[in-house]
Amino acid sequence: MGRWEPDAAGRLRAAALELFLERGYEQTTVADIAERAGVTARTFFRHFADKREVLFAGGGVLEAQLVTALDAVPASAAPLTAAGRALEAVADLLADREFSRRRQVVIAANAELRERELIKLAAWSSSLADGLRRRGVAEPAARLAAETAVAVFRVAFERWVAEDEQAGLAELVRDSLAELGRLTRRTTSRR
Amino acid sequence: MGRWEPDAAGRLRAAALELFLERGYEQTTVADIAERAGVTARTFFRHFADKREVLFAGGGVLEAQLVTALDAVPASAAPLTAAGRALEAVADLLADREFSRRRQVVIAANAELRERELIKLAAWSSSLADGLRRRGVAEPAARLAAETAVAVFRVAFERWVAEDEQAGLAELVRDSLAELGRLTRRTTSRR
Repeated sequence: MGRWEPDAAGRLRAAALELFLERGYEQTTVADIAERAGVTARTFFRHFADKREVLFAGGGVLEAQLVTALDAVPASAAPLTAAGRALEAVADLLADREFSRRRQVVIAANAELRERELIKLAAWSSSLADGLRRRGVAEPAARLAAETAVAVFRVAFERWVAEDEQAGLAELVRDSLAELGRLTRRTTSRR
Repeated sequence: MGRWEPDAAGRLRAAALELFLERGYEQTTVADIAERAGVTARTFFRHFADKREVLFAGGGVLEAQLVTALDAVPASAAPLTAAGRALEAVADLLADREFSRRRQVVIAANAELRERELIKLAAWSSSLADGLRRRGVAEPAARLAAETAVAVFRVAFERWVAEDEQAGLAELVRDSLAELGRLTRRTTSRR
C-alpha cells in the first residue's frame, strides 16, 4: 500500500484491536500491526507514537470537547447538571460501541492500560473542576461535582460496553446521574 | 543501631519523607533512607519492598478496614450512607495529618506516585462495590454508590491535607457527602 492510502489510521486501529484480542496486548508488536493493516511500520509511526497510543489516540480531542461543551452550558445550570451535559457531549462523540467494547476487553486485561485509563479520567475530572470554577462554582463544590460526574460517566460507560446493554451512552449518563440523585436522597446524616 | 531497634519502620518512614521533600523522590535511594534513619539497607528491606512502599505501606490494612467497616453497617442503611460510614472508619485510622500532608506533597510531584494513588482508590471502589452487592444492592446502584463515595473521600482528603483546614477527616467525609446531596438536589433532568 502506498503512502497516500486513505484512512490508514482507521485500518491500523482495527488491525491493532484484532491482534490485541487474538494474541494479547503485550505479545503484539508495531510490526505485526502494520503488517496486518497492509502498511509499513513507518506509516504506523506517522499516525501513532507507539502501540498504546492506538488505544488512547483521540483522548485529547475528547477532553477538549468536554471543556468546550461545559463552557457552552447556560450559566443558570447547576454544577452537576453542567458537568453531566459536558459528559453527554463527549458521549455523543463515542459512536462506535463495538470498537469501545473490544477496546475495553483489551484494557481490562492489562494493568498498564488500566492505569492509563485511570489517568485519562483523572485529567477529565481536573478539566471539569477548572471549568466549573470558571463558571463561578466555589470549592469544594467544583471539585466534588467534577469527581462525581466522572464517577457517573465511568459507571455509564461500563454499562454501555456491557454485552446486553441497548441504550446509548449519553442516555446512560443521564440515567446514571438520575440514579445518583435517588441514591443521595436515600442517604441519611448522623449529624 | 542494632537489629532489635524498636520502631525502625516508623523512623524509616519519617526519614524517607524528609528526604523525598528535601531532594525529590527520584533522587532519593534506599541507602539514603537507611542512613538517615540510622539503620542498614538490610533493615530497610525487612520492612519495605522498595522506596515507593514507604508511602503506600498500610494501604492493605486500610482496604481491609474499609470492607470490615462496610460489613458492620446496619443492613437498613442506604447504599451511599453505608459506603460513607465505611470511609469514615478508614478516616479514623488516618490520624497523622502532618504525615499525610507531607506525603501528599511528595505524591503530587511525581507522576508514577500519582498513578499508584489512583490505582489504590480504584481498588477501594471495587471493594466497596463488592461489599454493597453482598448487602443486596443491585447494579448499577452498587457500582455508582462505590465510585461516588470514593470521589467524595478523595475531595474530603484533599480538603483535610490543605494547610488551612482544621476539621477532621471523618467530619470532612460527612460534610462532603452532605454537599453532594445539595449538589444533586440542584440537578435538573432534561427528560
